[in-house]
Amino acid sequence: MSETHHEMWEKLNLDIDAHDALLGVLGKFYGDIYMSQENRLKGAEYLDFVLSEVHGLRIKELQDAQAEGRKVIGSFCVFVPEEITLAADAVHVGLCAGAEAGTDLAEQLVPRNTCALIKSFIGFKMAKICPFIESSDLIVGETTCDGKKKAYETFNEIAPTYVMEVPQTKTDAAKALWKSEILRYMAEVEKLTGKTITTEKLKQGISITNDKRRALQRLTALRKASPAPISGRDALLINQISFYDDPIRFTTKINELCEELEQRINDQVGVAPSNAPRLLLSGCPMAVPNWKLPYVIESSGAVIVGEESCIGTRNSRDLVDESASTMEEMIDALVERYMKIDCACFTPNNERLENVTALAKNMNADGVIHYSLLFCQPYAHEALKIDKALQAENIPMLSIETDYSMEDVEQLKTRVEAFMETLA
Amino acid sequence: MSETHHEMWEKLNLDIDAHDALLGVLGKFYGDIYMSQENRLKGAEYLDFVLSEVHGLRIKELQDAQAEGRKVIGSFCVFVPEEITLAADAVHVGLCAGAEAGTDLAEQLVPRNTCALIKSFIGFKMAKICPFIESSDLIVGETTCDGKKKAYETFNEIAPTYVMEVPQTKTDAAKALWKSEILRYMAEVEKLTGKTITTEKLKQGISITNDKRRALQRLTALRKASPAPISGRDALLINQISFYDDPIRFTTKINELCEELEQRINDQVGVAPSNAPRLLLSGCPMAVPNWKLPYVIESSGAVIVGEESCIGTRNSRDLVDESASTMEEMIDALVERYMKIDCACFTPNNERLENVTALAKNMNADGVIHYSLLFCQPYAHEALKIDKALQAENIPMLSIETDYSMEDVEQLKTRVEAFMETLA
Repeated sequence: MSETHHEMWEKLNLDIDAHDALLGVLGKFYGDIYMSQENRLKGAEYLDFVLSEVHGLRIKELQDAQAEGRKVIGSFCVFVPEEITLAADAVHVGLCAGAEAGTDLAEQLVPRNTCALIKSFIGFKMAKICPFIESSDLIVGETTCDGKKKAYETFNEIAPTYVMEVPQTKTDAAKALWKSEILRYMAEVEKLTGKTITTEKLKQGISITNDKRRALQRLTALRKASPAPISGRDALLINQISFYDDPIRFTTKINELCEELEQRINDQVGVAPSNAPRLLLSGCPMAVPNWKLPYVIESSGAVIVGEESCIGTRNSRDLVDESASTMEEMIDALVERYMKIDCACFTPNNERLENVTALAKNMNADGVIHYSLLFCQPYAHEALKIDKALQAENIPMLSIETDYSMEDVEQLKTRVEAFMETLA
Repeated sequence: MSETHHEMWEKLNLDIDAHDALLGVLGKFYGDIYMSQENRLKGAEYLDFVLSEVHGLRIKELQDAQAEGRKVIGSFCVFVPEEITLAADAVHVGLCAGAEAGTDLAEQLVPRNTCALIKSFIGFKMAKICPFIESSDLIVGETTCDGKKKAYETFNEIAPTYVMEVPQTKTDAAKALWKSEILRYMAEVEKLTGKTITTEKLKQGISITNDKRRALQRLTALRKASPAPISGRDALLINQISFYDDPIRFTTKINELCEELEQRINDQVGVAPSNAPRLLLSGCPMAVPNWKLPYVIESSGAVIVGEESCIGTRNSRDLVDESASTMEEMIDALVERYMKIDCACFTPNNERLENVTALAKNMNADGVIHYSLLFCQPYAHEALKIDKALQAENIPMLSIETDYSMEDVEQLKTRVEAFMETLA
């Protein structure tokens, strides 16, 4: 990233040295994992550019938006309804949570037995190296797991955090609670932005967000092809970028990229031989720059054909019904859409078992690698259930539990390769 | 326990050998920890008897009740409203969750990184050694933590479990969800028992349960005396027994015991010297026979003066308002009472910080020992907050994280003794 951003980062009160060091490591990591890929899409230039400027030009854009009187809302979870943020002309961004930075600091505030993602967002804040957190006018948390729910209480003391209550079942009463939470969020956003969310604006917010999801759905469908036209790493990166970039630009770019993929499929061009094992990743979200496991898998000769996670199909699979016209109908449509999310926070969550199995079949996956962050109890429990559901369909599964450390890379590689051999 | 119960246990399909072995270990454990106490209350005979017959005569009573057409409802948590159970003439009992039995079996169904309490209730079922589970006509779970919420899904496959959704905040919308859950439970209990819960019966259920809580409150208040008139072990046992014994008999017996305590206090008689360090236990519940930490503490020369846990003051502190007369008012009174529980499942849960601090002061505690079960994220997070709140009041705290294994007893003893020295 250019030297010209230093002034901006200083104004955001980042720790410049620590942030420079972070960017240095990330740059090298990205080079090793992404730039080393062969036969990459031309459209990946967009991904490289967005990622190289994610702490630079994108932050500049947030500042420009703020200079125009718009607000920036940062969140950690797919339950925070972007439609409402956009309806108030605010910018919706994901916050840093994918690297091991600041873990030592975070462990002063939360138990060591907390997952890496949570320690990461606390660490990024404490180490002053996340320009998104520092640019946010509102930080929104949610009650999707014990770890985050309790961590936000402490995080709130260093970064005031508005928390949405996500229910734990999908009963009518639970949906009523979620509806009241959506309305409460709407009121909060209106208060923050000083803008009234009209039906027209909400319709527009729904449309923009649905368009983004449709582009991602299109990408998912194209990955059914053999040979795989895009690497799992790049597809993951696209999903990661969907949380950071401007949604309209993102949608345009991903649709362009899908056109290139369609051409490739016509030409039978792929990123891996057509006999490369096709694997579906399933489980916890992988936030930027958590590319460890995808790299381990693909550098072992397999190709990832889908990401069943919040930074993947869990966030793009379901659209908001656009036939709604009144405010009440639109809110209800939002409630219905968000209550379709098959997050492990729900009990029961049998739809996830069905969704993973269907996705694995649909993508012609030879196997599934289930990924749980260490100390993530909801996904660790579901890993056992997913394994059973896949077994019933004769789809092999490998269960991986890891964190952001690089210490287990060789061990992971050994396990992934052994798993791949069983698929042959 | 008498040989005469074997036939009953066989009919319950218990694994007789494994169950005999369990009772053997428990009997020895109880002897070491309880019968070794000096200067014990005369009223403790009741405790000894209940505990010695907890798998015997008490189970016989459940069977007698069932023979009369009454139902038995088993649960794991203080959120399941006993008032409603009693209003349908059903019996409300706690289920086995306090020993390491069957852990190897449980780890086939849930992740290893699951707390001992959860692995215990699954293990007890799988090993066929909990006569309460086998006697239950309805098993009720709840969504108080990720571990239990997800474990009940799997547990449900071996022991059908009805799950109540406990909200995660105390907003009006969350209370509305809880109210709907109370009504749903009421309908379930009516269906199970074939009885209609009338206002009169519910009033009676509330009265019986409040009386039990009042007896426990009386006990708590008496423990303020110095020298401490009762050991923490016996007080914990009383709280444990409150989940198993008939509530009316229990209340009578505990009130008698309180009279004996009052006499002791008048006579300045105690179970420990008046200069023994007074410690408050705070945190996770200790289910029968989880007496490890209390024994470590009291055998080190301190006396425990309170248990801030679900098997302690968290369950007895708040009464249901008895001024309600209509069904609607009574249900609302139940909602209000249960939403006062300061469980770590809520966010925020600042009232717990206040309650622990107030209890420590009120009991003239010299320090607090916070107890978290390993992998219990909600209480592990709150341990850090409780520590901070107590520091602000100059009350020292020791944070212990452990499980049901006996391997760390010596280490715990060393830590507890070191903590006690800092109090001198």
